[in-house]
Amino acid sequence: MKPSLPKGTRDFAAAEVAKRKYIIQILQKNFEVFGFQPLETPSFENLSTLTGKYGEEGDRLIFKILNSGDYLDKIPDEELGLKNYKSLTPRIADKALRYDLTVPFARFVAMNSGLLAFPFKRYQIQPVWRADRPQKGRFREFYQCDADVVGSESLWQEVELVLLYLKSFSDLKIPVKIQINNRKILSGLAEFAGISEQITDFTVALDKLDKIGKDGVVRELQEKNIPSEAIAKLDFLFENKPWEEVLSALKQKFQNIEIGKTGVEELEFVLENCKKLTQTQGINEKNIVFNITLARGLDYYTGAIFEVTAENVEMGSVGGGGRYDNLTEVFGVKNVPGIGISFGLDRIYLVMQELNLFPENTENPIEYLFANYGEKEALKSLEIIAKLRAKGISAELYPEAGKMKKFFTYSEKRGVKNLVFIGEEEIKNDTVTIKNQETGEQIVVPTDEFL
Amino acid sequence: MKPSLPKGTRDFAAAEVAKRKYIIQILQKNFEVFGFQPLETPSFENLSTLTGKYGEEGDRLIFKILNSGDYLDKIPDEELGLKNYKSLTPRIADKALRYDLTVPFARFVAMNSGLLAFPFKRYQIQPVWRADRPQKGRFREFYQCDADVVGSESLWQEVELVLLYLKSFSDLKIPVKIQINNRKILSGLAEFAGISEQITDFTVALDKLDKIGKDGVVRELQEKNIPSEAIAKLDFLFENKPWEEVLSALKQKFQNIEIGKTGVEELEFVLENCKKLTQTQGINEKNIVFNITLARGLDYYTGAIFEVTAENVEMGSVGGGGRYDNLTEVFGVKNVPGIGISFGLDRIYLVMQELNLFPENTENPIEYLFANYGEKEALKSLEIIAKLRAKGISAELYPEAGKMKKFFTYSEKRGVKNLVFIGEEEIKNDTVTIKNQETGEQIVVPTDEFL
Repeated sequence: MKPSLPKGTRDFAAAEVAKRKYIIQILQKNFEVFGFQPLETPSFENLSTLTGKYGEEGDRLIFKILNSGDYLDKIPDEELGLKNYKSLTPRIADKALRYDLTVPFARFVAMNSGLLAFPFKRYQIQPVWRADRPQKGRFREFYQCDADVVGSESLWQEVELVLLYLKSFSDLKIPVKIQINNRKILSGLAEFAGISEQITDFTVALDKLDKIGKDGVVRELQEKNIPSEAIAKLDFLFENKPWEEVLSALKQKFQNIEIGKTGVEELEFVLENCKKLTQTQGINEKNIVFNITLARGLDYYTGAIFEVTAENVEMGSVGGGGRYDNLTEVFGVKNVPGIGISFGLDRIYLVMQELNLFPENTENPIEYLFANYGEKEALKSLEIIAKLRAKGISAELYPEAGKMKKFFTYSEKRGVKNLVFIGEEEIKNDTVTIKNQETGEQIVVPTDEFL
Repeated sequence: MKPSLPKGTRDFAAAEVAKRKYIIQILQKNFEVFGFQPLETPSFENLSTLTGKYGEEGDRLIFKILNSGDYLDKIPDEELGLKNYKSLTPRIADKALRYDLTVPFARFVAMNSGLLAFPFKRYQIQPVWRADRPQKGRFREFYQCDADVVGSESLWQEVELVLLYLKSFSDLKIPVKIQINNRKILSGLAEFAGISEQITDFTVALDKLDKIGKDGVVRELQEKNIPSEAIAKLDFLFENKPWEEVLSALKQKFQNIEIGKTGVEELEFVLENCKKLTQTQGINEKNIVFNITLARGLDYYTGAIFEVTAENVEMGSVGGGGRYDNLTEVFGVKNVPGIGISFGLDRIYLVMQELNLFPENTENPIEYLFANYGEKEALKSLEIIAKLRAKGISAELYPEAGKMKKFFTYSEKRGVKNLVFIGEEEIKNDTVTIKNQETGEQIVVPTDEFL
């Protein structure tokens, strides 16, 4: 009988909706001035569209939707008797909730590739669902805000997306650091150390340098059976040197390693052009840094990778993304390279709460609440209210006639800005009595003048 | 390999998103000036929250979400062997997708009743999901836009919601007729004819008067074993008389039928006050009519019921709603009467398409697309682009250097308003060359002047 919310989900009441909308509108505006077009995809996809795209763990976290009707009808008794839920699932659930915005976008591009103008720039702001264990800042339903460009290999896209991050976070007034790395540099390093087969072990360990320090990283590499000569060759990475030094060391070591050399060139193109462009815009170039330890989902990305962290607050990343060579190949459409970034709405919300960055007036309280003295007065009030509303001003009549105490309680709970009283006297004189709730000032003015 | 969309779902590309947003923003604006506050609830609820609220057919159409992990583990073999999907469903699926916005709203009010300021006025614009057979204008994922007031029995709410309908549809420029009836009048009629037990059969048949005419209705009543004396007593309803005549006939017949008398009084209060208020607002009062055949979901409503149909187009209803006595009783919170209306976004969209009511500029095409002649020119272009974007003007750089043919194709496909060329000459002179795509006019202006 007593209702509750499913684990990991939330209701958003007026104040939260208003704040979330404030963030979304800033992101949306920036996506649009950067030339991105909106896309909305359905909340559920065919299960087969999603399965196998997010790794085994991801597949497990996808919410599946039970088929309607008698979903057991076509399952043979023997099969059911095996009680193997993994093999049964796709037989009784052929749809699943969106797990991210990238795979539905890839599915859309594959289905419409003949119709789209490439480079195709889309943004998408929609909820996604994951059957993850809920914890602080992690929910089972949450919003992603993505911008992707597909059909172009130009490195100007990398530059553009960094600028999009900078401008959006600057508009939100969140101080951020944008960390950049390049998948090709990581591949080059693995090649340089002769451990190309173990690139994932290597980058996963390197990614922890911040947390576990040089000794921790070396220990983890040893545990993963990375040869000590290889570790020695990579030693220059573990010293937390300024990134400019790391970069020049890399250039030296990559003289005969093509992929590494390309990675460095790509990185420098992005860093240098971002630097030039931020200078003309009064943005501090120090906010864009090369971070060799940044790894992200390696299987997916093939070039630049990004991660954005908010400064002055402990929150983890508030955004991330990177370049990929083949977005739609898995759906049978080849040669659609692209690059995308994501903004984490829920984390951004928490950062803004913590740093007190929301403007005071995100919520629109009622401008005028009219008291109700009876049918004739209410009718007169509604006539005036209609005229206020036509001007875009929020106004309402308190519904219960004569209940003045309740009227005042309601007006306070709702944070109404002005109270309006229209009684017999006011009708006779064609006036309204207005009380400003902030100043307490009360005035009587002719109706026409008020309007 | 070849991807597809699940049955009854749709992608919305840029043009559709823009048009849908146009409608949503008008509704949202009106909800807010009428004093409604936004609410968003999670996409899925506990299955038990939804089950039993929409009738047997409704329960069938709810999309259930399969539990994660080994959902078969706790099901005894014997139970599984029965292959009874109806009893198995709640054991393997404890969550379900939102079926409408009213039950989640009731759940929210029940969970937060101590905190809310009553009358609580909320609006909610979110998708809902139904495992219905898809057909023209009916989808498995579609948006509802609801406004409800709970905690007030005042009939001014009925008046307000009619005004909200009128103002919203007037802002959308959709000509509509608002049909009003009252559940108490239908109860009074059943009592008057001595068929209170068969009220549903009676109203279901009466509801078809438009389509099957008097003979059809009478035949259906006979088939449902409604006595011929009762049918004779109700005969005055079946003549398609002007509603004013029906109303005065009702007043006569309800002299000793309390519920019917109350229904007529409520209806007259709403009609009369709406009439007075529409007069002062230049709205044609003819658009508000009493329709005795209007039934809607009788189990749910207890007072006024509304239905809105668009004129000059075959579309069925574009909105509906009514008063209910007990929204939250099923969740253990009593005495929360209320009234709500709903706008059907998808139907409204189709009507506006058919009547050509969308303004031409809903979509924001790119204002300035910059050609790309190489690195130096691109960088200069991006400097100017950043300044345009800072002013809220959409602008982008074509990413591939030198590919002029592709540049022109892209600009046409995207419907770009102006092309901008910055080559060697322009850099030397600090000018930009702008081509207006509509007029074909091409001019050279100093960069400063352009900005």
